[in-house]
Amino acid sequence: MTTQEVANRLVELCREGKYEQAVKELYAPEIVSVEPEGVPNRTVKGFKAIAEKGAKFEAMLEKINTTVITDPIVAEHFFSIGMLMNVQMKGVPVAIDMDEICVYTVRDGKIVKEEFFYTPQPQGA
Amino acid sequence: MTTQEVANRLVELCREGKYEQAVKELYAPEIVSVEPEGVPNRTVKGFKAIAEKGAKFEAMLEKINTTVITDPIVAEHFFSIGMLMNVQMKGVPVAIDMDEICVYTVRDGKIVKEEFFYTPQPQGA
Repeated sequence: MTTQEVANRLVELCREGKYEQAVKELYAPEIVSVEPEGVPNRTVKGFKAIAEKGAKFEAMLEKINTTVITDPIVAEHFFSIGMLMNVQMKGVPVAIDMDEICVYTVRDGKIVKEEFFYTPQPQGA
Repeated sequence: MTTQEVANRLVELCREGKYEQAVKELYAPEIVSVEPEGVPNRTVKGFKAIAEKGAKFEAMLEKINTTVITDPIVAEHFFSIGMLMNVQMKGVPVAIDMDEICVYTVRDGKIVKEEFFYTPQPQGA
């Protein structure tokens, strides 16, 4: 798949909420996942590590109110999307916006790196 | 200015080729500029350093054939654009595509960080 095709398919699957299928279908086993500076264990590698990250997030999540996945911007082996969510976290009385820019690196038709840009919440807050 | 307003203005100025004005108008003095891994002096800081980077690029450039600046994707304090250029470099017989994803961080209405995603050319090639 070209970078454009990978981008389109990722957007399609994320819009359907099929994040696990997206990983299975589009990610390389050597996937590197990078959170912003200031996030503990900022960089993790491999399917198991990103599945754990996903599970940890879901465990904190009460409900996703809305999700907007933008169309991708594609440049060479890279593409970028915006993920704009409004969520209810467990134990947090108000709904919060979780908006981020995501940048993906594609090699040989698979996503080998994902990097997220958002403002990390202070730890323990 | 909001992040959306900064993004729109940057796109407007880049589409007019007014890169220096964009820096003057939209960048904070503490600007951090980050190239991909593998690029020498990957991270530089401040107006002077990014002006030097710009001058170095221009010195290697014969001619810009085409430039496409995509609309921005905006998420919280971050935005992303695609810069798709076809250029003629000095001493290189064929025109080449220089496509990149650019991610910008905005604080207090100014761009404080720019990060570029593209495949670096091997040094000395």
